[in-house]
Amino acid sequence: MEKQRLQAILTSDANDILYYTGYAGLKDDKLFMLLHAGGRPELVVSPLENDAGTRYPHVTYISDTKDFIGLLKGYRSLGYNEKSLSLLLFQEMQKSLKARLEPAGRMLEAPRLAKDEYEIAQIKIAIGITEKALKKVGASLGEAGKSEKQVADAMEMEFRKRGVSEAFETIVCAGKNTAFVHHRPGEKKTKASDVFLVDTGCRFNGYCSDVTRMFFGKLDSRHRKVYEDVKWIHDEVIDRLRAGVVCKEIEELHRRMLEKRGYKVAHSFGHGIGLSVHEPAGDILEENAVITVEPGVYIRGFGGFRVEDMIIIKKKGTEILSEAIPVL
Amino acid sequence: MEKQRLQAILTSDANDILYYTGYAGLKDDKLFMLLHAGGRPELVVSPLENDAGTRYPHVTYISDTKDFIGLLKGYRSLGYNEKSLSLLLFQEMQKSLKARLEPAGRMLEAPRLAKDEYEIAQIKIAIGITEKALKKVGASLGEAGKSEKQVADAMEMEFRKRGVSEAFETIVCAGKNTAFVHHRPGEKKTKASDVFLVDTGCRFNGYCSDVTRMFFGKLDSRHRKVYEDVKWIHDEVIDRLRAGVVCKEIEELHRRMLEKRGYKVAHSFGHGIGLSVHEPAGDILEENAVITVEPGVYIRGFGGFRVEDMIIIKKKGTEILSEAIPVL
Repeated sequence: MEKQRLQAILTSDANDILYYTGYAGLKDDKLFMLLHAGGRPELVVSPLENDAGTRYPHVTYISDTKDFIGLLKGYRSLGYNEKSLSLLLFQEMQKSLKARLEPAGRMLEAPRLAKDEYEIAQIKIAIGITEKALKKVGASLGEAGKSEKQVADAMEMEFRKRGVSEAFETIVCAGKNTAFVHHRPGEKKTKASDVFLVDTGCRFNGYCSDVTRMFFGKLDSRHRKVYEDVKWIHDEVIDRLRAGVVCKEIEELHRRMLEKRGYKVAHSFGHGIGLSVHEPAGDILEENAVITVEPGVYIRGFGGFRVEDMIIIKKKGTEILSEAIPVL
Repeated sequence: MEKQRLQAILTSDANDILYYTGYAGLKDDKLFMLLHAGGRPELVVSPLENDAGTRYPHVTYISDTKDFIGLLKGYRSLGYNEKSLSLLLFQEMQKSLKARLEPAGRMLEAPRLAKDEYEIAQIKIAIGITEKALKKVGASLGEAGKSEKQVADAMEMEFRKRGVSEAFETIVCAGKNTAFVHHRPGEKKTKASDVFLVDTGCRFNGYCSDVTRMFFGKLDSRHRKVYEDVKWIHDEVIDRLRAGVVCKEIEELHRRMLEKRGYKVAHSFGHGIGLSVHEPAGDILEENAVITVEPGVYIRGFGGFRVEDMIIIKKKGTEILSEAIPVL
């Protein structure tokens, strides 16, 4: 911040706020934080958060945009998280403030890339809970004609039984629907012989898990071939990961491996994960960055296959954090 | 739109999109819509939504901001939803487009204020499910020292058992925590004799319910007094509602009634509700607008009381949609 001569950075990203202050509100609460170049982060909240002061020592209350502008009036230079700040508020700031306003999302992100011991411990617990929930739900797939939606609901109930919530809406695809990447679980009944894809994760103390597993009622030869190809690419990608690796190069390798086998690229090889399910992995992988690796193949009218693991980047390689969850 | 001479309005609000196209993605999906001055709404999505075309007839795929700018290049005038559009994308649009850009959120909102028959039916079903879930969870409050968090989780499990999800994170406060408006459910064990506040709701076919009920292990005389005051204000507000009423006047009345009894105003008397939990009620209440009425009193160190009902505005009065859920 001093390099860019910013007095403070404003963010409304709940995960930035949790990271820098330890403060978590309800999911839909509107929270703000001013990260000062010197001094502790200032939590800026509405009067609805009337317990914030009992949970964090440096809270400012604002009732409306006018209050907010009043709070920011004194600044000559302000950074802002351009990925989270509301356009409406920003336009008000442009109109009413004299401060130089600069996008500074990357400055907030940078310290979040590499995870410390505490963060890794929380992520491991989130993965452990996902493992147990997935085992339970996986064992009952195709039972008594449940719908995809009911399977997804069952997964989210398993999370709540264990005191956590889903990190994102669980994706469940059955049969040919496995060809759809972000398929919204439907009401159609599934069969025990169906192929299932479950993409799921939970949050423990704010930290996310995100894994994808396939379940086969019956694994035919074409699906076995796709499975083998995807699993091979998955392993090849992981083999190449270590601190210092350039992400774009892995992306390029991932693309070549898919195309060489005659598949289209539907999405990137993975993403950073932490307090946010999807966060930057960094241009160059740092030691203790946590990322997912999730190659996938999607064939309209037939089906798809994706396997997604969570990996921690080490100096000389990786550790697969979700290894205990069986792939097939 | 023609009045303001806009060729199209761009929004990234999932509820706008559901309203105008009927298309729902996963909760965290990034979706866009171009509402054209003539012709049907255009759904703009990433390739991750590779089943969108099977569910909506007018889909454009974009992989990145460059694609997006390409799509918008031809426009001379574009409205945008200033409450939802990402600041980052807007800045890119300002830089790369020649179009006149105008905030147009209110134009998208206006048709959503009054609910039609289908919408009212969905809202009633969402309230009915909430009633059943709340009855179940209410009956087990204080049992075996459950924590607030466990009560909230139980509520969200009841929703999933009935095929729906929470419309917002359920608020559960026990004892003195009822003094906190947006209290995040905690891990402390509750007692059967505690006062409980549960603020909860679910979504059915996209449409939200939102009700608050109190449960008393033991209702002492001070809490009874607060209850009677809040209930009186609640009833007085509802008595005054009908089509054509100016919202600000009700807000003012609500403030006076609270202050006259020696209470502070912690929040407004209610809010519009529909596909979004909180949506505008309109400056002047329209026939068939659905709103909540939720007066609350919060006394630090003692506790609070809030009661929240859902109301539909009629020509000559109201109908209390959540009346079947007992207040005490």
